[in-house]
Amino acid sequence: MTCAIMHIEKKLDALGLTLMDLDRAYRANASSARFISHLAVSNLLYLSGTTPVRDGQPHLLGVVGADLSLAQGYEAARYALLSSLAAIKYALGDLDRVAQAVQLIGFVNSAPGFHDQPRVINGATDLLVELYGDRGRPTRAAIGCQGLALGHSVEVVLTVLFRGEGTTPPLARDHYVK
Amino acid sequence: MTCAIMHIEKKLDALGLTLMDLDRAYRANASSARFISHLAVSNLLYLSGTTPVRDGQPHLLGVVGADLSLAQGYEAARYALLSSLAAIKYALGDLDRVAQAVQLIGFVNSAPGFHDQPRVINGATDLLVELYGDRGRPTRAAIGCQGLALGHSVEVVLTVLFRGEGTTPPLARDHYVK
Amino acid sequence: MTCAIMHIEKKLDALGLTLMDLDRAYRANASSARFISHLAVSNLLYLSGTTPVRDGQPHLLGVVGADLSLAQGYEAARYALLSSLAAIKYALGDLDRVAQAVQLIGFVNSAPGFHDQPRVINGATDLLVELYGDRGRPTRAAIGCQGLALGHSVEVVLTVLFRGEGTTPPLARDHYVK
Repeated sequence: MTCAIMHIEKKLDALGLTLMDLDRAYRANASSARFISHLAVSNLLYLSGTTPVRDGQPHLLGVVGADLSLAQGYEAARYALLSSLAAIKYALGDLDRVAQAVQLIGFVNSAPGFHDQPRVINGATDLLVELYGDRGRPTRAAIGCQGLALGHSVEVVLTVLFRGEGTTPPLARDHYVK
Repeated sequence: MTCAIMHIEKKLDALGLTLMDLDRAYRANASSARFISHLAVSNLLYLSGTTPVRDGQPHLLGVVGADLSLAQGYEAARYALLSSLAAIKYALGDLDRVAQAVQLIGFVNSAPGFHDQPRVINGATDLLVELYGDRGRPTRAAIGCQGLALGHSVEVVLTVLFRGEGTTPPLARDHYVK
Repeated sequence: MTCAIMHIEKKLDALGLTLMDLDRAYRANASSARFISHLAVSNLLYLSGTTPVRDGQPHLLGVVGADLSLAQGYEAARYALLSSLAAIKYALGDLDRVAQAVQLIGFVNSAPGFHDQPRVINGATDLLVELYGDRGRPTRAAIGCQGLALGHSVEVVLTVLFRGEGTTPPLARDHYVK
């Protein structure tokens, strides 16, 4: 294991953030049946949408602007991104193989009249930049939505470029969870 | 025509599902002006968002969690995916040229407080897996939205990898439909 | 500078549309922190979601079907696309390097019961076709959403293929704006 390989995960440790076990996260997310965690097309890694999980449990459920404040939405987005990082770790073996964040579409479960979706999704992209610097900045959209799985407050759909060859076969869920 | 070429369409027949004429589906979807059914970038096929159509008519209009049940939403998602298959058939000539489903973003026209979007979108991804097995599993997101064309309950945006060379020139609609 | 290079911008002039300074547009959009205007993967240019800006100000804020009419939503979509064109101009140097519009996902900040999202997003794709003809037609989805940045009525997420080599380093915003 090289120094570079440890770099991003050490940064996560320093931030007090723990990568979850992907399989466990999938259950917590109730991501249920018939899709996969990730898929590589050449060196572009598509990830399934991910939601906030902390200590193996759904984190900060609710509607931003009603049940949750902007600050809580920001934290939810940070943890939603952490779930995507867990998928990347599973797919690529180590987080340092990320060459560039390409696109992040962030959906915020929003109350009528709430229009601070970008500041919520900053929670996801700020973490990307804390970890990866320039190569962590994706193109981005921040969209208010009406409902997400389990009543989650944020879901992010991330695509990244990666270095090197090969990915782990994606995890699939073949039956409904919970 | 080889055996492989008939395979997926035979499965559709066995499921009692009929591929619509794409042009007619476009009209039913009121997808109106100025965009195309599909576009290939190398061997990645982008499809326009599709909605549920049955017997040439919009199928299961309404808001899931209010007008429609979860089970009806599931069926709507199945038919929305069928509309994407019609576009793939038009684009590639036969459905067996699909090498891998890459990404499916499913939007569910949702009542406030409804948060079973993943179980609705299972209707789309379950059909992909019934037809294609492992290669039918895409990365996925299931998002609750506020309104879709014509009052549709589900719209899916699918991207697939395909085998072989060439696609049919995409269908374009140049005028507003109804 | 060749004739071709001027073509699209001359068409914009003839339509009375002015490309904004991208940096200024970013501020108007409050697109704030930690993401980039565009990113090229081979010859595929990903753009961040853009919102309507006119004369450097947010244009036509509000909810379509409540605060804004369908016609105003259409105009908002036209200006949202203009903001994407400003990003393309910044990225590629000139708008004629666009080879093909690939995908446009249009989000419409929608009142409950509003389901004319496609006719709203026609404002974006009609402008693409006015400027580029056949190569301006993307695959498309038009989705009703619950809230957008600043209370914007429309956001479009565009991906295009481009000709030639190289793009301008993307603009990044490192601090919150406004």
